[in-house]
Amino acid sequence: MPSKGKHQTEYRPGMEGLIAARSSICFIDGQKGILEYRGINISDLVEHSTFEETAFLLLHGHLPNLRELRQFKTLISKQRHLPRSTLDAIANQPVGMHPMLALQSSIALLQGEDFYADDVVFLKHNLMRATSLIAKVPTIIAACDRHRNNEEPMPPISKYTHAENFLFMLSGDPPKKRLARVFDKCLILHAEHTINPSTLTNRVIASTNASVYSAVSGAVGSLSGPLHGGANEHVLLMLQSIGDPTNVKTYLREQLESEGKIPGFGHRIYKTTDPRAILLKKELANILEKRGGAEDKILFQTALKLEEVAGKELGDKGVRPNVDFYSGILFKILGIPLSLFTTVFAMARVAGWTAHWIEQVSHNRVFRPTQEYIGDHNRRYIPKEER
Amino acid sequence: MPSKGKHQTEYRPGMEGLIAARSSICFIDGQKGILEYRGINISDLVEHSTFEETAFLLLHGHLPNLRELRQFKTLISKQRHLPRSTLDAIANQPVGMHPMLALQSSIALLQGEDFYADDVVFLKHNLMRATSLIAKVPTIIAACDRHRNNEEPMPPISKYTHAENFLFMLSGDPPKKRLARVFDKCLILHAEHTINPSTLTNRVIASTNASVYSAVSGAVGSLSGPLHGGANEHVLLMLQSIGDPTNVKTYLREQLESEGKIPGFGHRIYKTTDPRAILLKKELANILEKRGGAEDKILFQTALKLEEVAGKELGDKGVRPNVDFYSGILFKILGIPLSLFTTVFAMARVAGWTAHWIEQVSHNRVFRPTQEYIGDHNRRYIPKEER
Repeated sequence: MPSKGKHQTEYRPGMEGLIAARSSICFIDGQKGILEYRGINISDLVEHSTFEETAFLLLHGHLPNLRELRQFKTLISKQRHLPRSTLDAIANQPVGMHPMLALQSSIALLQGEDFYADDVVFLKHNLMRATSLIAKVPTIIAACDRHRNNEEPMPPISKYTHAENFLFMLSGDPPKKRLARVFDKCLILHAEHTINPSTLTNRVIASTNASVYSAVSGAVGSLSGPLHGGANEHVLLMLQSIGDPTNVKTYLREQLESEGKIPGFGHRIYKTTDPRAILLKKELANILEKRGGAEDKILFQTALKLEEVAGKELGDKGVRPNVDFYSGILFKILGIPLSLFTTVFAMARVAGWTAHWIEQVSHNRVFRPTQEYIGDHNRRYIPKEER
Repeated sequence: MPSKGKHQTEYRPGMEGLIAARSSICFIDGQKGILEYRGINISDLVEHSTFEETAFLLLHGHLPNLRELRQFKTLISKQRHLPRSTLDAIANQPVGMHPMLALQSSIALLQGEDFYADDVVFLKHNLMRATSLIAKVPTIIAACDRHRNNEEPMPPISKYTHAENFLFMLSGDPPKKRLARVFDKCLILHAEHTINPSTLTNRVIASTNASVYSAVSGAVGSLSGPLHGGANEHVLLMLQSIGDPTNVKTYLREQLESEGKIPGFGHRIYKTTDPRAILLKKELANILEKRGGAEDKILFQTALKLEEVAGKELGDKGVRPNVDFYSGILFKILGIPLSLFTTVFAMARVAGWTAHWIEQVSHNRVFRPTQEYIGDHNRRYIPKEER
């Protein structure tokens, strides 16, 4: 092991407060509730940018000019098509596949069509691979979902934006422009968030010079965990079970008494309201003025009431709504099934993961931390007969 | 972000010296060259134990008694069979699949047959899943290899040991007992090694409460990187290119002058010879007394000479043979193709990964370290036309 002087001496569960990477991709000020991608505030991006442009920004470090943006959009639309081998694999997936595991498995399989995947030296090639993955992940998600429903996959259509195309591939219906733009904003908001567990997974795998398919597949696995990417499902289920704003106080009291957690509340980094929650809430309020059934409106009112009551009870402890609190209702209005909520998170986050992959391999050192050993030493090997 | 006082202040590339886990599975003394699994010295295990018994030890924390060992071996032999869906997926893999990515993809797919994979609460269920994965990984590797060679998979045979069965499934020939026992020792030696990149990957994914299929699949991805699990391939290729012990000095001089790395030498933890290299070298010398062609003997002599000459030049710097230095020649004699070397590493290490998975979920806290941000702030969103 390294010499004593170079060692951290105290074990911190979950590596809280330890620095895992030096990065220029994303910045969070958890006290002030600021989130920036490459230095640009998330609220500016949500207002003015698109997912395609934001993905370019994350990968390249700067906003594209008109020519760069046109090229990038063309590349994405061309790269959306899946190789035959991936489509065949999806068509053979067992019926019990969790959509996130189906995605994890399929992404690893994409390596089979990239004969030079081992070579991670050239930035130009890496940018191409990243763009191709950003393009293909939604096609995989939609194809897996249709396979589960015993339907043929819908081929991507190049005239649609990234957001429009996903909604089309899922349902087979022409996307509604206004709804697709709301979905586009959701994708921008989920595209990147510094060193969370999935991004750490992605960088650790990248650090061994494994291919980007290995790294992003592993990141999807990490995001599939209910303690990471799976929370917005639980928020929607909670709001449905509360049923009505008048039941909020009783629900909250019960949760606090049983020391249960409230899905969609609290974040290890933000000590104020997650800026993404504020932006999603605004989008949700806007969309409900024109669309959404009575059920959606009650869900939103229940959520607002819960935010208000929980804010009074827990706000001082920094327990406030996070990104998952309003996204579930929004995804429901967009017609995305509950089982796909985490995959939608992944389809946005692949932009951040691939940006981190490129950053990691361009200034690489293999992740090899140490451990605190708490077991025995010098135990004797006792022969079978004496045990 | 957490308050300043709780922060590490200095960025350490690769997290060197930082504590990632508290663990009682494996211990390494890099100064003295000691490696213990659950407190038992690796040389005792190699001499007296088997891979099956060692896997039980890693998972359960103690050596099995006669009844436990019999039950564990029966369970492994029954669990070796792959579900139809996995066999179909393997039969459809594209021809360009890297064996490690084929394995990564297939392990994620196993989740589709485990409807309760989300539930990681019960130790008893987790031990069952771990045992099932240890049993199935060799079957996947052999089936993928035979698919690449356009051959039908060989079904596992329950009377064979884990090591015998793998050699059988690969070639279709009845295994030779003595060679299989050498392979068994190799599996023991590769079964576990504290918090290396793949085990870190596995624990980070596990910490989100993702399923074991997600965690082990991600770990395979990490091990696939040439800076982690891929080195023994390169040792064999190097020894073959050196060609003869008389060429060793010239080769070494050229490498030192060009500041090239010597595959199979050096390890971030060991400051003396890796104890696994010592044990593998002994096995190799034994086996070459009775078996192995002229080519294998020359490879071994070349390796011995390289160890001697490099020891004089670099030994004081702690650059000594590691586990990969002698394993490649041994795998070659055992009839394992070069392209499968890293998968053999994985088939052993799955015992360690699953032990770490169980340890992580039983005392869990999500991995969420922090970062050092080195980018800009407050960049303006410049409209497209002005860029």
